[in-house]
Amino acid sequence: MSEKVVIIGGGAAGPKTAAKLRRERKDLKIDLYTQEDIISYSACGLPYFIENIIQKAETLIMRTPEDFKKQNIDVHTNQKCINIDTRNKTVTIEDMISQNIYDVSYDVLVIATGATPIIPNIRNIDLKNIFTLRTIQDGVKIKEKMLQSKKAVLIGGGYISIEVMEALVHNGLHVTLIEKNKHILSMFDEDFAQTITDHILGHTPGQVNILTNEEVVAFLGNENDEVEKVITASGKEIETDFVVLGTGVRPNTDFLQGSDLKLSVNNSIKVGHTMRTSKIGIFAVGDCTDNFNLVTNRYTWVPMGSTANKEGRCAAINIAGGICSFDGIMNSTITKYFDYTISMIGISYKEALELGFQPEYAIVTKRDKAGYMPNTGTITLKLIADRNTHTILGIQGIGDGEVNQRINTVIPAILSKTKLESFMNLDLPYSPPYSPAIDPVLNAAQIIYQKISD
Amino acid sequence: MSEKVVIIGGGAAGPKTAAKLRRERKDLKIDLYTQEDIISYSACGLPYFIENIIQKAETLIMRTPEDFKKQNIDVHTNQKCINIDTRNKTVTIEDMISQNIYDVSYDVLVIATGATPIIPNIRNIDLKNIFTLRTIQDGVKIKEKMLQSKKAVLIGGGYISIEVMEALVHNGLHVTLIEKNKHILSMFDEDFAQTITDHILGHTPGQVNILTNEEVVAFLGNENDEVEKVITASGKEIETDFVVLGTGVRPNTDFLQGSDLKLSVNNSIKVGHTMRTSKIGIFAVGDCTDNFNLVTNRYTWVPMGSTANKEGRCAAINIAGGICSFDGIMNSTITKYFDYTISMIGISYKEALELGFQPEYAIVTKRDKAGYMPNTGTITLKLIADRNTHTILGIQGIGDGEVNQRINTVIPAILSKTKLESFMNLDLPYSPPYSPAIDPVLNAAQIIYQKISD
Repeated sequence: MSEKVVIIGGGAAGPKTAAKLRRERKDLKIDLYTQEDIISYSACGLPYFIENIIQKAETLIMRTPEDFKKQNIDVHTNQKCINIDTRNKTVTIEDMISQNIYDVSYDVLVIATGATPIIPNIRNIDLKNIFTLRTIQDGVKIKEKMLQSKKAVLIGGGYISIEVMEALVHNGLHVTLIEKNKHILSMFDEDFAQTITDHILGHTPGQVNILTNEEVVAFLGNENDEVEKVITASGKEIETDFVVLGTGVRPNTDFLQGSDLKLSVNNSIKVGHTMRTSKIGIFAVGDCTDNFNLVTNRYTWVPMGSTANKEGRCAAINIAGGICSFDGIMNSTITKYFDYTISMIGISYKEALELGFQPEYAIVTKRDKAGYMPNTGTITLKLIADRNTHTILGIQGIGDGEVNQRINTVIPAILSKTKLESFMNLDLPYSPPYSPAIDPVLNAAQIIYQKISD
Repeated sequence: MSEKVVIIGGGAAGPKTAAKLRRERKDLKIDLYTQEDIISYSACGLPYFIENIIQKAETLIMRTPEDFKKQNIDVHTNQKCINIDTRNKTVTIEDMISQNIYDVSYDVLVIATGATPIIPNIRNIDLKNIFTLRTIQDGVKIKEKMLQSKKAVLIGGGYISIEVMEALVHNGLHVTLIEKNKHILSMFDEDFAQTITDHILGHTPGQVNILTNEEVVAFLGNENDEVEKVITASGKEIETDFVVLGTGVRPNTDFLQGSDLKLSVNNSIKVGHTMRTSKIGIFAVGDCTDNFNLVTNRYTWVPMGSTANKEGRCAAINIAGGICSFDGIMNSTITKYFDYTISMIGISYKEALELGFQPEYAIVTKRDKAGYMPNTGTITLKLIADRNTHTILGIQGIGDGEVNQRINTVIPAILSKTKLESFMNLDLPYSPPYSPAIDPVLNAAQIIYQKISD
């Protein structure tokens, strides 16, 4: 009888593991269980579905259970894993429709249960029209409500809120964003967060309001229990048609409480570089696992769709008998606010100080092409390096020019701990439509090197 | 008395050296001699001036002699260096206007004489309207002629010819390109060169003609000694209003014949990583120097404006008493043909075989953003790596999508000899408007790694 691989979770990492494993090994029996009614979709595309850049939600679905069936992978939708028994090698599944509970045995188990939104403890949080954005159903509900609305409140100033804000502003709504920290996108240094804030406020003056250092203490509803007002700690009352919570996510690992699987940061599942957990025969991939940070050399928890795909692929290779090691992550993020790219890799100057590095930084604002070319954009980069090792610790980038081209250049250099003195003379290809003769990212490295050489 | 630095050459490297040196050291006397009547201009921008994307030639001038004077740098235009005497530390200069010849003494000499077009030995090459494109004057002449013309012949299928072709096609001319090799852009592998050719021919059908495996044997002129026809080895007679020679350049080092300065590849000046020549007190920078190739570990000669700027900066730091080492180059190039980006880094598959590597490659053609996003472009990447070391040897990229973002990602990895198994899992930032969840360049690395692991 063929060995049986059971995969729990249908977002990005689970289906990726299944598909890659099937390509590697025709002989294995592969079953995937998911509590949702669809699988294999791009949650990262949901803001663009809400914005109506993408018209149909189904566009975000990469593969259906029928597609998987053709690859001899059995997908079981609406089936939630509620327990695992590592000794008897079984998982307990609840059928979300019939409520039946049954056990499934495995030879190899892959946990890919993802993350789930954190619902803050705010008075009247269970009113209608208070949404989270994680699943396609969430996206459909928000879009439907948006099309009948004039104003919305977003709680939390992370990437998802920025992306949802673009969607709502583009559709004519007035948006208020409420952030409890001193600035939105709190992983950025304050100077950069301020530039981002200025851009957002300047893009559609009067249509967006950003409240920082502000917490929501209650929601007020109407006679139909629909949210009508948001009340803040400082006493503000904000009228709204709906609310989107962007207050973070946590690993979907509650069902592992009491199991003997080792957990890590934020109750994510502890995995090594091969995606093996603390138990032989059990792998974990995607948003439910911890991550090794290549800049800080510490374990962290950063759920990302791209990481989920790489981890799924890596786990599949190892399950199939190959060798794949996933080195780790750098907290790499990028997003768009209309014409503006916002990106950050590694750690900020502030975090570098907190972690005991001796950071130095350079901020450059430059055209992204030769200055005499038409249609140039502007980019601002903040490069951060360590005085002791001369290695790069992080970069923040914003602007309407080609930010990501520069950001991507830094990533392999962080991985390889390339010294500034080499990085600053890197042979980036030059032609006037693509960059100045000395690229801004090299220019930033030159400035830091000069600072630490003096 | 202050030490005297004499710089010969006014293109990119010489002025860069002068400006950086002045920032580092206020005390030095700096004199720059150039045979041209202007200095510090972007030769790489000339095709865009001809195309009329840039209206005025002066736009390409970065700094004037007057600008330099304000920095206490004396620029001497129309002054050509005809000899150097390393024993007596003098250079002999000829005034191009008065024909006076005089000696100038130096404590430190910087040679930045650049490169000069190769004029092929073809019958009647001295007819009127046969141009090279190197100086602003060249650009002005070609643009003037283009505006009165309907057809042109370009000889040589390198980057400059591709860029000039865009300029002429954009201005409505019919263009014939003649290339003696089997394909244009001969540094590319044949499959990629063919794709580029197909794109160029398909962009404006009937307006462009590309003849490969074809040599020009003669030009025919009219009664005014203006070129009228181009005759090829296979017997073709091509009518034309003018000709642009893109038949390569050579280092401008004739005046060093007989000096005791060590020369290198193609008679370029031998320099080390600090831009010092074989003689103490003499530096050389820019297109007149040799280059260390970081992929092949051999010396080569690849004149590039970006390298010239880096070398000038590096020489200035070392002259000023600092430490700067220029590691080397990777033959990085990029150009544009209308909406199409064409780029290559490192060595081709063919060259890798010739050099004794054991290369493997992957070609991927992908959308440059998440497939469900609107306005995605397509990119085709050919990644080449070595089976023995698992390191990347080169990449070729073409397409209307964000090619350079991917190309730039590879460059630090080549520098650091990052193994494919690390590169393929690189934490590139992901968001649907910027890339698929697994970036095409990582996908290419995954495919090669799979090939060499089997």
